[in-house]
Amino acid sequence: MLGSGNVATHLGKAFKIAGQTISQVWSRNSDHAAELADVLAAEPITDLFDLNQDADLYIISVKDEGIANLASELKLKDKLIVHTSGTTGISALEGVSSRFGVFYPLQTFSKVKSVDFRQIPIVVEGNSPEVCALIHAIADRLSENVIELNSEQRRTLHISAIFACNFTNHLFALAKELLDEQKLDFDLLKPLIAETVDKIQLNDPVTVQTGPAIRSDISTMNAHLDLLENKPELKLLYEKLSQSIVNLQQRSEG
Amino acid sequence: MLGSGNVATHLGKAFKIAGQTISQVWSRNSDHAAELADVLAAEPITDLFDLNQDADLYIISVKDEGIANLASELKLKDKLIVHTSGTTGISALEGVSSRFGVFYPLQTFSKVKSVDFRQIPIVVEGNSPEVCALIHAIADRLSENVIELNSEQRRTLHISAIFACNFTNHLFALAKELLDEQKLDFDLLKPLIAETVDKIQLNDPVTVQTGPAIRSDISTMNAHLDLLENKPELKLLYEKLSQSIVNLQQRSEG
Repeated sequence: MLGSGNVATHLGKAFKIAGQTISQVWSRNSDHAAELADVLAAEPITDLFDLNQDADLYIISVKDEGIANLASELKLKDKLIVHTSGTTGISALEGVSSRFGVFYPLQTFSKVKSVDFRQIPIVVEGNSPEVCALIHAIADRLSENVIELNSEQRRTLHISAIFACNFTNHLFALAKELLDEQKLDFDLLKPLIAETVDKIQLNDPVTVQTGPAIRSDISTMNAHLDLLENKPELKLLYEKLSQSIVNLQQRSEG
Repeated sequence: MLGSGNVATHLGKAFKIAGQTISQVWSRNSDHAAELADVLAAEPITDLFDLNQDADLYIISVKDEGIANLASELKLKDKLIVHTSGTTGISALEGVSSRFGVFYPLQTFSKVKSVDFRQIPIVVEGNSPEVCALIHAIADRLSENVIELNSEQRRTLHISAIFACNFTNHLFALAKELLDEQKLDFDLLKPLIAETVDKIQLNDPVTVQTGPAIRSDISTMNAHLDLLENKPELKLLYEKLSQSIVNLQQRSEG
């Protein structure tokens, strides 16, 4: 396991649960390597010269901008190597080995919470049909939901996940900040958030949009923009997201 | 019931389920009045001259911009009247009656889906402590979660709900639009969306933010912005929401 962040941690644990052995955890930061290696009963290393040359699978799970650099330091001949990025192309691993691919678990991982990997979509890609099939088979051990996508599709999936998950969480955070100022409990919003997510289980979200923007309720929106006058960041987001709701409605009807 | 939209429909049904009688449904549109009146076993009316003068409660559930106008046409002496708006102040009903207030159910209502009203927070306000207590008692029959807030607090709650619910649903819709273009299934995102909501049940959302913005993963963000080059609306939202994630992190640490 090359990397020691949230994805490396959760993925390493999932492999352990599936009965696999993690031989080594590499990180440039020795504390990080030691911490995750301890969790995974692996050997911590910080020098790539110490890398075990006989592993069945090498997993690069570092920030996107670090992948190419790390790959350039590795020579693994015919060993199978994957990265776990949603956005980096498969080609970033060219030259490292003759067998390379992608192993991208589509989930939001945090230090504070474990997840059931069986339900997590794992997106796989290989530099040949054989390699892809092998990576697919490995992913099948961890998840019931493995799909093969090319790099362009995976990037689109990643961006859509940022909108649907990262930005959504941020909207929850902004809502909580607003409530905190008035000493109102964020729990008040939870039934509403639950219903918002429940509604899209069986409905296309564009068809169940509610709120002042979709109703063209200008007076409500103007009242809200007035109230956000001293919060230019929130005001701008309110305007742009409301406009985007109207635009999407027009696109979906057009 | 003065109004025939989603809130009027769901609220009317909830009153029926609680054993109350809806005497009349008023709407300027006779089809709308007839349709909801049929559901609620009530009399449809379109002319305010036909309004029953002996109801225990009058509920105005129309668009915010229509409330003041409708209120100006009503004279109800000492009859209890409420509106159901999150944003309109209680004062919009001054002059209609000596007893007036607000009955705001904090939920997203759509035609396609019923909701369990018992779990919905109902925000109440009255023009006197006695009136507020009476409206509170009425709300208690429908929900286990009734709170008294003043108009300013209620407006903040409404705006926060727009961020956490309406805008969130819109982000789901934008994500689906991106996926549709690549013929990818929106269902792929559902485990991720479920986890996003699950995480905030026990954690402050600001502490569980994930994604490239919070990691300052500039190369990933730049790759995404390049991919959104031909979608200026999405590109702008991506930029502004990412910047807002960074800003909020600084505010919450500061």
